Amino acid sequence: MKLTVLKDHLNEAIGHVSKAISSRTTIPILTGIKIDATGAGITLTASDTDISIQSFIPLESDGTTIVELYAKGSVVLPAKFFSEIIRKLPTQQVQIEVKDQFQTTIRSGSSEIQIMGLDPEEYPLLPEIDEDKIIRMPSDLLKMMVRQTSFAVSTNETTPILTGVQWTIADGKLKFIACDRHRLATREASIDVDSSLEFNNIVIAGRTLGELNKILPEQNTLIDIVIAENQVLFKMNAILFYTRILDGTYPDTSKLIPQAYQTELVVSTRELIDAIDRAYLLSREDKTNIVRMQMKEDESIEISSSSSELGKLTEQINLHKLKGELLKISFNSKYMLDALKVMDSDFIHIGFTGAMQPIIIKPEENANLLQLILPYRTTG
Amino acid sequence: MKLTVLKDHLNEAIGHVSKAISSRTTIPILTGIKIDATGAGITLTASDTDISIQSFIPLESDGTTIVELYAKGSVVLPAKFFSEIIRKLPTQQVQIEVKDQFQTTIRSGSSEIQIMGLDPEEYPLLPEIDEDKIIRMPSDLLKMMVRQTSFAVSTNETTPILTGVQWTIADGKLKFIACDRHRLATREASIDVDSSLEFNNIVIAGRTLGELNKILPEQNTLIDIVIAENQVLFKMNAILFYTRILDGTYPDTSKLIPQAYQTELVVSTRELIDAIDRAYLLSREDKTNIVRMQMKEDESIEISSSSSELGKLTEQINLHKLKGELLKISFNSKYMLDALKVMDSDFIHIGFTGAMQPIIIKPEENANLLQLILPYRTTG
Repeated sequence: MKLTVLKDHLNEAIGHVSKAISSRTTIPILTGIKIDATGAGITLTASDTDISIQSFIPLESDGTTIVELYAKGSVVLPAKFFSEIIRKLPTQQVQIEVKDQFQTTIRSGSSEIQIMGLDPEEYPLLPEIDEDKIIRMPSDLLKMMVRQTSFAVSTNETTPILTGVQWTIADGKLKFIACDRHRLATREASIDVDSSLEFNNIVIAGRTLGELNKILPEQNTLIDIVIAENQVLFKMNAILFYTRILDGTYPDTSKLIPQAYQTELVVSTRELIDAIDRAYLLSREDKTNIVRMQMKEDESIEISSSSSELGKLTEQINLHKLKGELLKISFNSKYMLDALKVMDSDFIHIGFTGAMQPIIIKPEENANLLQLILPYRTTG
Repeated sequence: MKLTVLKDHLNEAIGHVSKAISSRTTIPILTGIKIDATGAGITLTASDTDISIQSFIPLESDGTTIVELYAKGSVVLPAKFFSEIIRKLPTQQVQIEVKDQFQTTIRSGSSEIQIMGLDPEEYPLLPEIDEDKIIRMPSDLLKMMVRQTSFAVSTNETTPILTGVQWTIADGKLKFIACDRHRLATREASIDVDSSLEFNNIVIAGRTLGELNKILPEQNTLIDIVIAENQVLFKMNAILFYTRILDGTYPDTSKLIPQAYQTELVVSTRELIDAIDRAYLLSREDKTNIVRMQMKEDESIEISSSSSELGKLTEQINLHKLKGELLKISFNSKYMLDALKVMDSDFIHIGFTGAMQPIIIKPEENANLLQLILPYRTTG
């Protein structure tokens, strides 16, 4: 292999695939980035077995030569050092040459670096994926759906299936569900999909979707999502992102969501976030995160928290609407803040079916997003 | 005590004094910020016994009312919670009221916070300082002198005196010296001082000077520095910064600096930094940080490093000047980068008196700044 490539393009591609490099891998070859130079361009690959990412650098783009290829070939180079040294090279023109025993030389200006490369034959093959089950959606929508749900996955590895987000596809709609044992987040959207396509057991790790969100392009563009037996492939412009589907069956969460409310209120999202954010500061001190909400006759709520060491805090918020029985309810302020921060609506609707029943939070005028939080069993 | 104060001014003052709050203090009262409200304004005080900082908020500034005072008084409030909650209050007008038992109420908009305050009588008194020995200097010069020396202090607590920067005042000049056992940094400047004033045993902790640098104002202004028996007081506009002088006698370092060189070179600071920065990436892998410099007949140097695991790197740099015997010398690349990064000169002069003798780095045309690095005893 021998080629020159423009530093900025190489840097960008390394930045993308590096998100699949795990610092805790026990498989030596996976600490490296695989480089394949072919007649079409350069492909970089990185993987931690759960996630695999490929980034492609074409020979030219918009009439500008990006890669000059002198000899095809492949090599695996240590990811951390390779990405750091490329970023610091003095010139845009970077030459990479691989000789016997994968001995690799990188030249840029008057810098010359010799790296011991690894055998690309030892690098695991990426899964071959049939492209017959495809959904297509805007990257902005995907990003938003991930942001609105993935924070609610469980971090407890004893129930691995709950560390993922469940994807359900039915009737031309895509639905994400995330839940740990204390809260649930769900977001639904109509997408461009063959109405005969139905899935209910695609579960993708929350951590993986977080990495995907970092790679999704800044500008809105259409993403193809290919669904296979136990893999999902996200196809972006020049980037392929493969992820494993989690093993197991996701629990049925539909029964958790009440169909009618005993009490309903509408409140300014910003005012509620700010008040709970302040209450959180005290609730955090006692490690409980408990904040209380008390509804009042004058269509207001009082938010309060206390810490045995520091003191107590009360906040008054006027409601936009209040209907039903006045309740006094306690909840985890951190969970409430997580739910409120993804609302993307000036006013939110909160529904209650009793002081010990789930709290349901929705944007005032959008039935596609729903957050559920279990209250704390406290009095006082 | 009862007053209202504008949130932004209170926030700024808290930000300044908080730099003296240590999370590791074992003295409970020092986890707090002392607030004194008098007829002149509000004074905030924080201390970790080594550093004490006071920030003053006047009743008004430029015709704008900042503080409305209803009752004088003092209280100590828990620093962490106090600073976080003030930052998040909903309105600019913040009311603080202290009642019996230092029970403190903070009101802002419809937020009300009750904090258990501590007795200000328990708060340690700040040292009383005679203001007869004063030096005055521009804040920018002080900041620069700290930046150019304090990185070289020792981090090894077994010789506490070396964790400080030595200040020498003589003949109207102020000189800073910092050294651990491997390098030395020194910076000198003429300042506005009574020529009879002489000191040679003011040693201030490098960490303290780092905190001072964060507080020194953005715009250049004159700073008064008051030197007392075992304290130094930095007087800025509205801020007083007290620091302890380290106990002990600073070693005489004047003999370490050679008076004549066997080899001298002048090189572009940027080119040398970039080359050593790349070489550092490999040298770091073997935890030695060893980088080699070899001088060549054609007025160039070769910078090289290697790692048993990764490979090796070589860099060629053309010199601006080269005089004397051609040397091959090894050094700690991290120390060299620290020294080069504070040069503030496009070209630097490096002087050598042999492969095992100190390396002396200076700006090409400025004798006020000098960095010394001991070479490594390696061959090859």
